[in-house]
Order: sequence, then C-alpha cells, then structure tokens
Amino acid sequence: MPFVDELAAALPSGAVVTDPDVLEGYRHDRTSWLTPGHPVAAAFPTSTAEVAAAVRIAGAHGVGIVPRGAGSSLCGGSQAVDGALTLSLERMDRILDIDGANQAVTVEPGVMNADISAATSPHGLFYPPDPASKAYCSIGGNIATNAGGLCCVKYGVTRDYVQRLEVVLADGSVIETGHDTIKGVAGLDLTGLFVGSEGTLGIVTRIRLRLRPAPSGTSTMVAFFPTLGTAGDAVAAITASGLQLSLMEIMDRATVVVVDDHARMGLDRDAAALLLIQSDSPEPLRRVEVERAAALCDEAGASYTAFTDDPEESEALLQARRLAGPALEELGEPIWDDVGVPRSRIPELLGAIEKAADRHGARVFTFGHAGDGNMHPTLLVPRGDDDARAAALRAFDDILVAALELGGTITGEHGVGSIKAPFLEREVGAGNLAVQRAIKRTLDPAGILNPGRWL
Amino acid sequence: MPFVDELAAALPSGAVVTDPDVLEGYRHDRTSWLTPGHPVAAAFPTSTAEVAAAVRIAGAHGVGIVPRGAGSSLCGGSQAVDGALTLSLERMDRILDIDGANQAVTVEPGVMNADISAATSPHGLFYPPDPASKAYCSIGGNIATNAGGLCCVKYGVTRDYVQRLEVVLADGSVIETGHDTIKGVAGLDLTGLFVGSEGTLGIVTRIRLRLRPAPSGTSTMVAFFPTLGTAGDAVAAITASGLQLSLMEIMDRATVVVVDDHARMGLDRDAAALLLIQSDSPEPLRRVEVERAAALCDEAGASYTAFTDDPEESEALLQARRLAGPALEELGEPIWDDVGVPRSRIPELLGAIEKAADRHGARVFTFGHAGDGNMHPTLLVPRGDDDARAAALRAFDDILVAALELGGTITGEHGVGSIKAPFLEREVGAGNLAVQRAIKRTLDPAGILNPGRWL
Repeated sequence: MPFVDELAAALPSGAVVTDPDVLEGYRHDRTSWLTPGHPVAAAFPTSTAEVAAAVRIAGAHGVGIVPRGAGSSLCGGSQAVDGALTLSLERMDRILDIDGANQAVTVEPGVMNADISAATSPHGLFYPPDPASKAYCSIGGNIATNAGGLCCVKYGVTRDYVQRLEVVLADGSVIETGHDTIKGVAGLDLTGLFVGSEGTLGIVTRIRLRLRPAPSGTSTMVAFFPTLGTAGDAVAAITASGLQLSLMEIMDRATVVVVDDHARMGLDRDAAALLLIQSDSPEPLRRVEVERAAALCDEAGASYTAFTDDPEESEALLQARRLAGPALEELGEPIWDDVGVPRSRIPELLGAIEKAADRHGARVFTFGHAGDGNMHPTLLVPRGDDDARAAALRAFDDILVAALELGGTITGEHGVGSIKAPFLEREVGAGNLAVQRAIKRTLDPAGILNPGRWL
Repeated sequence: MPFVDELAAALPSGAVVTDPDVLEGYRHDRTSWLTPGHPVAAAFPTSTAEVAAAVRIAGAHGVGIVPRGAGSSLCGGSQAVDGALTLSLERMDRILDIDGANQAVTVEPGVMNADISAATSPHGLFYPPDPASKAYCSIGGNIATNAGGLCCVKYGVTRDYVQRLEVVLADGSVIETGHDTIKGVAGLDLTGLFVGSEGTLGIVTRIRLRLRPAPSGTSTMVAFFPTLGTAGDAVAAITASGLQLSLMEIMDRATVVVVDDHARMGLDRDAAALLLIQSDSPEPLRRVEVERAAALCDEAGASYTAFTDDPEESEALLQARRLAGPALEELGEPIWDDVGVPRSRIPELLGAIEKAADRHGARVFTFGHAGDGNMHPTLLVPRGDDDARAAALRAFDDILVAALELGGTITGEHGVGSIKAPFLEREVGAGNLAVQRAIKRTLDPAGILNPGRWL
C-alpha cells in the first residue's frame, strides 16, 4: 500500500505498525459502547519532526489521522476510524524541563498526568488539573479535551495551565503558540483555541505548563443528606460563603450503596446524597474552612457530618469517591456521561437524571463535581445485553437534553468526540458552529485531522 | 455621502454623528504619542440589532469600522482610522442581570469596569480584574485587550472571567459563545478567541462574567530595597513560598521619587525599589501571609518593611502605586509601555530598561506587577518636544526587544494595537502569525473590522 510504504520509509524502523493483532489494541478507547473502525496503520513517532513527516505523508495521500494519547477518552475522541492512520503519541513521553523559578514544566504529550506532579514535587510544585483517570491519561489527551478533575473547583481546568504549545498543523508545518510569561496578550489566543479542539486543528507535540506551589496538607469532611434538595442547599451555601475549597464532590444514594457494597465502608445507605469536601489551604485556615463547611451542611439539614485532618483518614474518605468507577465496572458496563449546569440547578439536574433513567428503564448512578455543577450520571448495563444498552443510550441522550434545558452543557470535561456531535449545534447554535467549521476548514482544508468527529 | 446617509437612515435619530467638533473627541484614545486618523462618522448604537445594522451597511460600502469603548487604550487600539466609521459602544452601558446564586453578571460592553463590582457588591460579589484605569475603562475594551490589573497575581485576567459573549460578526450576523456553567468543553473555545482579539474578529455586544465572593478585608505591607537584585530576590522567594497574595507591585527609584515629590508621602527616596504587597485572604490568614511576606523581604535584604491591617493605612500605601500615573502626567507626556518576562528575570529586565533609556537619552520610570513579571516602563517626554519624543520611542522599541530577548512578551495586558504590530511576528513567529491572519480572513474576509492594526 503506497501510503503505508511511504510512511514506513520516512519513519524509523518499528515506528509504523500494520500487524492486525497490534492494531486491535489501538482501535478502542474507553468509550466501550461505541464500535471503533479499523485503522490502516498505527504510527509511533518519537519526535516533532516524525509527527510532521507523518502528517505531510498522510495529507499527500488524503489519509485521515486519529491522534491518540493514552486511549482513555470517554467520548470516542480517540477511537480508530476506518482507513485512517492512528497516530499514537505514547513514545513522546519525556519531561523536558522543570523551571522551578518560574513554576513551569515543559513536557511531551505522552506523559501521564500524574507523572507531572510526581516529577515536580521535589521542587515543591504540582500540576493542579486532576482527572479521576490521572494515573492513566496523558497530558496530550488532557489538552485535547481541556480536561477537568476533582480540584478544578479551586484551581481551574487544563486551559488555565497551558502556557505554550508546539503544534504540528495539517500541512505538516510546525508552530509555537503562547508565551513563557504569566500574562501575555500579543495576538490571538491560539493556545486556548488548540486546547479543547480534540485533535481536529493540529497535533500538540510539546507543552509548557504552569505549576503551583504544592499544598502543605489537607482537611477533609463528609456529610450525608436526607434529600437531594438539602444537599443542593448546602452546595449553594458553601459556594456563596467564599470558602476556597479544593474539592467538593457529590454522590447520589445509588452510587453510595454500590461503593459501600464494593468496599464495606460503613456509609449511610439511606442518605439521598453524600457530599465530600476538602481544603488544602495553609494552616490554620484549612481546618477553619472545613469546619465552616460542616456548619453550613448542618444548617442545610445534613443528617451527619464528620471531618478530619489526618492524612490517612482523609484518603479513606476520598476513596469513597474514587471507588465509584471501579465499583460500577464490577457490576456491568458503565456508560459514563458528563453534563454541567449552573451550580444553583444541581438538584433539578439530579431529579431530571432520575426521571430520564426511569423513562427508559435504565439504572443510573450519579456523582461528580458539585462545586462546578459538573455531574457524571453513569448508566449501568449488564454486559452483553444489547437491549439494555440501547435503552441506556436513550436515557443518555435525554440527560443531555435535560442539561441543556437547565441552561447547562452537554459536556463539562470529557469532550464532544464522536458521541455528542449530534447535540453540539443544539448547545452552541448554528451561527457559532458555522464559525467553528470555518476555522476548521481554514486550518485543515482537506479534513484529515481526527476525521468524523464533531468538526 | 451614500454610506453615512444609509447608516443614518437605518439607526435612530442622533445615533450617527458627522459634526467635526464631535468627531474630534472620538479620534484619540490615550495613546497620546500617535496621530489618529479622521473618521467618516461616529455611530452610537444602543442595541445589538443597531450594531449589526451598522456592520452590515459598512460592509456593503466597504467602509472600515473602529469599535470603541471608553477610549482608554494605551496601544492605539481604538484610535480613529481615516475614512472609517468609529463605532462607540458607550450607550450600551446597562447591567442586564446579576445572577447571585451562580456568581455571574450579564452586562453590555459600555459598562465601566469599576461599576460592575459596585453593582454586585450588595450580593457579596466582585469582578476581580482591576486595571489601574478601572474607573474609566469599559468592560468591552477590557475584553478586547484581555486586560489585566493589580490583583491578577491571585485572580487571573479578563479571559478567566468571561463565561459567555454575544458577538456581531463582520457579515452582520450575531452569534453567542461560551456557556453559563463553570466548566464546559462543547466545541472550540470561541469565547477565548474573541477575548484579546482587539475588535478585529467581531464586536462584542453582551457579556456574562463570572464573579467571586468579595474579600472581607486586606492586610498590606511595603518594603524598600537597596538594590534591584535584592528586590528581585524577594519577589522570587515570595513566589516560591506559595503565599496567595492578591497584589505584589514594584516601583523603581525614579518612580518613588516622582510620587514622593507629587504627594510628599515620606517614601525612602534612596531605595532602588519599593515593593507593595497585599493579601485579601480570610482572617486570620491574611495577616499571617503578609507577615510571612515581610519576613521574606527582610531575608532578601530589604532596608525597611512595614505592614498594616488598617483599611485607611492600606489605602494610603496603595496610593503610592496609584499616583505613579498622575505624578508622571504632571511632569510631561508619559509614553506607557507594557512588557512581561518570566518572573525570575525581572531584575534583568529592569537593568535592560535603564540601559535602553540611557542609550537614547530618555527618562524612564518603571513600575508594575512584580507577581506576574508584567512591567510598565514609562518614558517621560517634555510636552511638545518632538526630538525627545522620537528618542523616547526608540527606547520604547529597544525595551520591547529586551523583553523578547529575556524570553518575555511585547505586551502583558495593554494589547498590540497600532503601536506594537511591527514586533508581533518577532514574538510569535511567522507560522503562528500566518494562522492568526488566516483566522482573521475567515471571519472578516473584507478586513473591515478595526482595520490597519496588527491583523
């Protein structure tokens, strides 16, 4: 095949793979409920020049390119496309420079999120955005989706930390965007445009990230609520208080029960919702903040609150949230959703999610980032039950519509990818989407970058 | 004139002005050292529909449009262009909605920055980005330039607070961008693209801004340093400490002397630099933070430090910084520059600024945002002295080059406008600028929006 032969000749030995057994491992991402295509080949470049060469050759042959980080997408953003090249950045995984004095780090896109903070902690610095998948998601993928995480309520999302990018464009040329300074307004914000563009405008090959001084410790509290309304009131009161909490997570009753079944943590299985709150402010403030949050939960009608400064007890409380995913995966196939609403509308969203699930006879478990109004309603399907899966996907769509009707978004942090493309225009409007498409055509006239997604 | 007649017919009576005396007042912005052009007319729309009508008619006649907020640009971004329409948003100055529960406000572009926090303070909320010009700069202009301010070191810049925009495009169509939620990744970040585009991609007609709970008070400290190096060491130590200071401003000796001449504040006129630091954290933390900052200044070699929790004393200390502008304007014509470097390189930048001024026999006064590495070297010219002005402008250019050579930027918060366009490619590179221009051509093929600036 001329394309593959030319690509293999241009890249080092072993950098282009067509073995069907190997390719099979690069077809899927974590969007299990979608069927991926069959790539023509997979490429594993180790340098910007190799990425640029691959893009030029693919362009010359009119072959699409699916950029891929760690394959942890939950929106089908890195699933293989029939006849396209899957371009894995996994071998570009070096931490190139730690600039302690300016609190920044320069990395390649294949570095895992959690490895960045691990590498910078000897400098007293950390990289805040922390998706639940941080151990197995790459920073390149985080940039593609403008990923969020647990501590975004205090620290913001990926885009807030990207200072500079090196990007291979669709014509194989290489540009740099951004600046090494904290502030900078020289020209259009191309950095922010590439962040969140899900591989449709260019392929990021080097990244300078801003870091923050690592917190000295945490205080943590948990509260149980008899109703969704009282939990919502507590979230509203805490938001209005101005407390700078570093985490505010919510889990509904169904999720609490599943986690308790899984790990026997002695959680209150009768509560309608659990709220988990953490502060990483300097002492003595963090204890003060968490005590104040507990008092606000009590005032809102919490049935039980408890807090701790002990790191091990804190970690045990956080485990309740972190185990939601594994506990659900043990019981079936989870279909992870990701919607957001203005924070005041979280209780309405939770009610709408339950109704959508009931309407289609689906089981739903909701947890997420209460401090941001970003929820993950997760539909659970018995593995191999196609009818149940189809019903769950109808509920999934209804949940997107419910979020939009509440003034919200179809995706808070996972991305549009393949699965939410049909709903994008409904959220942003035809005129806005036309501008997005015009920019896409300008930067990628032949449409070779991550073809068949939302742009 | 057919264009003006058609425009006047389409807009309400009084909305289009051609009286030369009135137009004269709309030729200039605060970039006094540039000579503006002569507009063909000025329009004063009061609604999005009127802005759209003006844009359509201008487009049909091939007439350029200079959008204008309060005319406080320091980069020539809103100066009149020969033969173009100046489109003033000053009559679109309504605060449309305050969403206390979700900590957001919706405004028209002509609202003054300071009026936003004034309007939202009864809700316990404030709008953080605070340019020194906040009393007389419009939020529309802030969005055009992605404006910064004094408290950005803690709170970030304009782009971090813009949730949603309504924008009139070059073809007169109207789109909305963004979302009402805290997080949202549905599609390309057009909001961030329009922020900082200086009126070259569209005209912003409505804005939803994120707010924050207003701080309960401040603690303030001042430190004097015998050398620029010791001041730089203090900034580095404070940055590394992780203290969440809400303000960290620096003034050089020349500026300290001018302010002290102006206001007789008893400042140390022999010090090489003054550092001004504030914390607005909740009690008791803010006192702890400012005391810790003072200790770090002492360790770095400060000759004198003092701090206060008293609001009036705090305000008096801050006055020293705020008076830099007025004190300089009293002495001549200031040519305001705005460059940024990675924070570790501030002392080198200050040295390079002095050298650039000396080289051209210019007088320079430097002050700015030490916490961000964003400095405002200000060249002072005797009013009416064209030779001195020409020399100062040569020093101005050399300062931009010095910032770039230190890994910095030609503009941290004022914008590129007319005055820095020749230096933009040197900062961002030819490939990056080509992408910016391609996006500009896509959104404004006839080039009618803010013509003759950097795009």
